[in-house]
Amino acid sequence: MSRTPNQDQQIVLINTFTVKSENADALLAVLAEATEKVMRHRPGFVSATFHLSLDRMHVANYARWRSRADFDATMSDPIAREHMGKAGKLAERFEPMLYTVAHDEQRAAS
Amino acid sequence: MSRTPNQDQQIVLINTFTVKSENADALLAVLAEATEKVMRHRPGFVSATFHLSLDRMHVANYARWRSRADFDATMSDPIAREHMGKAGKLAERFEPMLYTVAHDEQRAAS
Repeated sequence: MSRTPNQDQQIVLINTFTVKSENADALLAVLAEATEKVMRHRPGFVSATFHLSLDRMHVANYARWRSRADFDATMSDPIAREHMGKAGKLAERFEPMLYTVAHDEQRAAS
Repeated sequence: MSRTPNQDQQIVLINTFTVKSENADALLAVLAEATEKVMRHRPGFVSATFHLSLDRMHVANYARWRSRADFDATMSDPIAREHMGKAGKLAERFEPMLYTVAHDEQRAAS
């Protein structure tokens, strides 16, 4: 079984930002604005969920895109890059990683 | 606005495993088995989604729990710890992080 994604396979971006805790809210605001104004209008955007760690030193974006090609097209868009640059400046570092979903479990019926 | 979670707030675990690519499928199988046999039957488990990175060198678990207390109770359970130990042995390292959801966006209506 091959898990190499094809053009039709949904992908997941998990981008983990390390932040100074005092910058966490500003970073979340920039990410929300970028998504509201740019990302969600781009072809292939499915959803984005932004998370704040309990220690307020990490912010994680969990985003679904219809395909790798759609994600790559948005990432090479100058307007999207400008927004991501603003986010990057608020973080100490960030680690974007692209995934496919391998397995999914819901709560057992009770 | 405080984002400190209370006992009633849903939390998200994002656990990122770094693996040798030849161990990725085995790790995914151990995580799926642990979730199927143990986690999903525990109070407060909501969902778990397992991801394989496109480079096959990372596996990420994205899991929702009803509350921090439910998550902590499961993590201190010896049977759950045994399963997580098996997963840990297949990884080079793993970085669990607890979050709350700060913001959520869906695709714009077209």
